Amino acid sequence: MSIVSNISPLAPKNFPIMHSISGVRFATANAGIKSGDSEDATLILLEPETVIAGLFTSSMMRSAPVIDCQNKIGINVENTGAAIIVNSGNANAFTGRQGELAVREIIAELSTRVQIPVERIFSSSTGVIGELLEYQKIINVFDYLVDSLHVSKIENAARAIMTTDTFPKGSSVKVSSSGGKITISGIAKGSGMIAPNMGTMLVYIFTDALIDKNDLQSIVSDLNEETFNCITVDSDTSTSDTLLVSATGKSGIQVNKNDLDFREGLRKVMLDLAHQVVCDGEGASKFIEVSVTGAVDRKEAKLHATSIANSPLVKTAVAGEDPNWGRIVMAIGKSGASADRDKLSIRLGDILVAEDGWVSPHYKESDGAAYMKRQRLNLNVDLGIGTGSAKVWTCDLTDRYIEINADYRS
Amino acid sequence: MSIVSNISPLAPKNFPIMHSISGVRFATANAGIKSGDSEDATLILLEPETVIAGLFTSSMMRSAPVIDCQNKIGINVENTGAAIIVNSGNANAFTGRQGELAVREIIAELSTRVQIPVERIFSSSTGVIGELLEYQKIINVFDYLVDSLHVSKIENAARAIMTTDTFPKGSSVKVSSSGGKITISGIAKGSGMIAPNMGTMLVYIFTDALIDKNDLQSIVSDLNEETFNCITVDSDTSTSDTLLVSATGKSGIQVNKNDLDFREGLRKVMLDLAHQVVCDGEGASKFIEVSVTGAVDRKEAKLHATSIANSPLVKTAVAGEDPNWGRIVMAIGKSGASADRDKLSIRLGDILVAEDGWVSPHYKESDGAAYMKRQRLNLNVDLGIGTGSAKVWTCDLTDRYIEINADYRS
Repeated sequence: MSIVSNISPLAPKNFPIMHSISGVRFATANAGIKSGDSEDATLILLEPETVIAGLFTSSMMRSAPVIDCQNKIGINVENTGAAIIVNSGNANAFTGRQGELAVREIIAELSTRVQIPVERIFSSSTGVIGELLEYQKIINVFDYLVDSLHVSKIENAARAIMTTDTFPKGSSVKVSSSGGKITISGIAKGSGMIAPNMGTMLVYIFTDALIDKNDLQSIVSDLNEETFNCITVDSDTSTSDTLLVSATGKSGIQVNKNDLDFREGLRKVMLDLAHQVVCDGEGASKFIEVSVTGAVDRKEAKLHATSIANSPLVKTAVAGEDPNWGRIVMAIGKSGASADRDKLSIRLGDILVAEDGWVSPHYKESDGAAYMKRQRLNLNVDLGIGTGSAKVWTCDLTDRYIEINADYRS
Repeated sequence: MSIVSNISPLAPKNFPIMHSISGVRFATANAGIKSGDSEDATLILLEPETVIAGLFTSSMMRSAPVIDCQNKIGINVENTGAAIIVNSGNANAFTGRQGELAVREIIAELSTRVQIPVERIFSSSTGVIGELLEYQKIINVFDYLVDSLHVSKIENAARAIMTTDTFPKGSSVKVSSSGGKITISGIAKGSGMIAPNMGTMLVYIFTDALIDKNDLQSIVSDLNEETFNCITVDSDTSTSDTLLVSATGKSGIQVNKNDLDFREGLRKVMLDLAHQVVCDGEGASKFIEVSVTGAVDRKEAKLHATSIANSPLVKTAVAGEDPNWGRIVMAIGKSGASADRDKLSIRLGDILVAEDGWVSPHYKESDGAAYMKRQRLNLNVDLGIGTGSAKVWTCDLTDRYIEINADYRS
């Protein structure tokens, strides 16, 4: 089987205009880790006083760089610069002591080149699991990377961190805070092994806001619950997921965890990137928002929404443009959360499909069939038994997913 | 998309020779519920003194016939005959009060024809969800069914209960008990919407053993945990799953729940039928046994095994004959159960692939690739941290699964 490198039909038309963030510079290079001749090494340099918040995969098989990052998020000191070094093409996961050695070597070498203590250097690796990372190849491009750092190169970074992604993912906003304008820009990669239980991908977000580190971590953790933790492509959780949010403070505008403008701006960037990851779901042809209301509580609403969003039978029905709402009923039934057949209602967009325990008397199959031809679908369920609600985003399951994943390493 | 009715490559060569069970007669007919001209109605008549044990789906959206069966399993009395009436083509699930009415009408009418009280008549429906069951069509063939009942027609029944199944499923054994020979024969249907949390399909098993009803229910519940509850095709749980085990007592040989020979015979039939359901998994080209040992306890072992067996990335790798054991590592990591990277080992059959937190130094990729070409695969994981073990059976995930399910109703 050969993979044609198609761009997802759900990709945005253009990479967005990215506001640069004072205090953050990017460089990319081709280190020869990823097959082909595309760039696969990214260096991000952050100026002194930058605070960094992070969230990581919940996998018990966390990769060596993830474990290293987690140890550092708690102890990093802000008076020095900081750096993020990323490679694509190899996840350095399940590579034993050799994998840990690779992380130490990369970070020690970079520490010397950029004169930043090892505690302030974060690394990520993404790609194949279980193969030794040839870290010397990455070290070999350090000189080139350091020499080519520039504040404008965030799009190059968005491209260099891609693996099976078909388009680079970026999002950028300006926030009017009480103290003045704050800028937030972020990039992400991810298209397979995407499921709740953390960022489930690599995400790097930057802002020039001046904020206390604990406040930043608190906001990021909150927002993660309603953005990256609410998307799923295939229910598989990566060993490498990393979300780092860096605040350089260069705007001089102070915010704290109660600042609603800053929180809303960061939420927009995180949600936009999360949606873009879904839009690049392996083989995706449709973007699906599953919205559940009227559940016992938010937790139960999310159980139902996730059960629908992860159901292979729902996802293949969407792929086939089949308004097979019986499969939504099935997914509600198996979720493990409470439901009452005679109280729930199901809508495809605004079209009422089912209520009072059966198909709605006004529903026409032709209306449902027409709705399913859309590229962006809303599957709406109201359980009618409480006030809990949740949204989860996913894509359809197509034969292209099989094609990509039955042949990933060949 | 058109579906060619291929028989699964994993199907047994022949339908097995089925020992008839004294006290059980079968009849089948074409009632016109299922599209095409195949038979879709099955009547099974059981003589007085038959005891019946049952297990049903855990779905909150249980179908009307399942709810009716569940109510009767507790109250059935043995001094009258009993009957099982099954239709394929329509699940009579999520059909509201109309669905309940359909069950009542079918059972009341059959009760009159066969002179058996309604409490002793069990019904099952399997097929599309959410469409009204035209029950009069089933009632219309009652005369034909009653007139054509015969002890030898179990294979016809195995065929008439099929929906997307590509082959009929039967299993039959003779058990040498201390009192003499006991016979057990069973049939099953199921190929999609198969996941743990109950029988996950329709299964009817018959024996001529003489056994107390509570003892039979106890044995069936025990065995279900290690047979039907250990298979998964697509992690989707049906609204209609039903397992009924009927003991006519006609052999005159008394057994109880401690009889190991009878238990082992019943286990063989249940496991054989469970495996056949996996072999008919929609689009399946490989049969996979996931065996987990060395876990903290059985529950955690099963969490790991199920996580591997349900992972789309593992299942597509198997479809592509790719020895991508990194995805097994990923699935262990996301299972939610305990694991230690440096203590676990992974084997493809007998081939040691990974240990000490990394690929085994003796592992050759060419050995793994050769192993993956087999039609029956053993994925063996030892966690090295306890004594818990579990086996789960599944199939691979192919583009044929997508093809079948993106177009089921058209």
